[in-house]
Amino acid sequence: MTISLYAASIPVFKQMLGSLGAVLAKAEAHAAAKNIDANALLQARLFPDMFALIRQVQIACEFARGASARMAGVEAPKAEDKEQTFADLQALIAGTVAFLDAFTASQIDGQEDREIVLRPGTPKEKRFTGQSYLLSYALPQFFFHVTTTYAILRHNGVELGKRDYMGAY
Amino acid sequence: MTISLYAASIPVFKQMLGSLGAVLAKAEAHAAAKNIDANALLQARLFPDMFALIRQVQIACEFARGASARMAGVEAPKAEDKEQTFADLQALIAGTVAFLDAFTASQIDGQEDREIVLRPGTPKEKRFTGQSYLLSYALPQFFFHVTTTYAILRHNGVELGKRDYMGAY
Repeated sequence: MTISLYAASIPVFKQMLGSLGAVLAKAEAHAAAKNIDANALLQARLFPDMFALIRQVQIACEFARGASARMAGVEAPKAEDKEQTFADLQALIAGTVAFLDAFTASQIDGQEDREIVLRPGTPKEKRFTGQSYLLSYALPQFFFHVTTTYAILRHNGVELGKRDYMGAY
Repeated sequence: MTISLYAASIPVFKQMLGSLGAVLAKAEAHAAAKNIDANALLQARLFPDMFALIRQVQIACEFARGASARMAGVEAPKAEDKEQTFADLQALIAGTVAFLDAFTASQIDGQEDREIVLRPGTPKEKRFTGQSYLLSYALPQFFFHVTTTYAILRHNGVELGKRDYMGAY
């Protein structure tokens, strides 16, 4: 027995995107209940040179889409990054999940040795296999932005718990 | 080609524990350079009912040790949680890496279908296979605490970047 590349990626992304949507729904409800301007949360950041909440969600979705596309060897859709509201972020997450759902296991399984090159032709060029790309790069990056979204909201008093972060597993 | 359970766990934990140690070393140096009491960082938290920095590091190490042990079917070492200083945390991380290094791939590979039961006999009992335990539970938990450690330090002004979080990959 071994793990398929599909199993180590698409369901993981989907679990956490599901939790991300639920966490953001609680944040929106919290803002409404407390008469807080939604932008106070959407534009919140943990430090001035860190990304705000909206951008954290955008990047998490970008990693889920981009990683899946790269492993399957298809074009990653270009993000427009126009989201401004909680509803926009929910639509972004739903679109990302739909994008992930369109992959069959056979498109991703077997790509463990596919060469994936980040920032090709630049001094920061980095070469991976499909497997090393997912495990040592894409998953750590993805989890970073999902967790930071949660951290921003917790720091701003939204009542969330680890269960919200974990999603349905 | 598929991914081995060992490859999806031990090297991932080690990469991030390496980065966690480096991040904490920068935090300690930052405190020294700015004449900040180390405890101001070690006891920092993002919200009153969240865990402080020391506990985040302890839990990250606990998940790395516990997940590896559970997958291999050996006893997870009991954490003493006595760490109080940056040096204590570095020793904890080093000990955790040494614990991980003691596993051979053959102890973990092939355990994808092993039944792993969390909180057995309680209303919150949860049954996993080795694979679902790692991918849907242990990795999300582990990354949560590594990222939250980073978030606490960034929020407190320690100069860190994503490269510090990512470690050597």
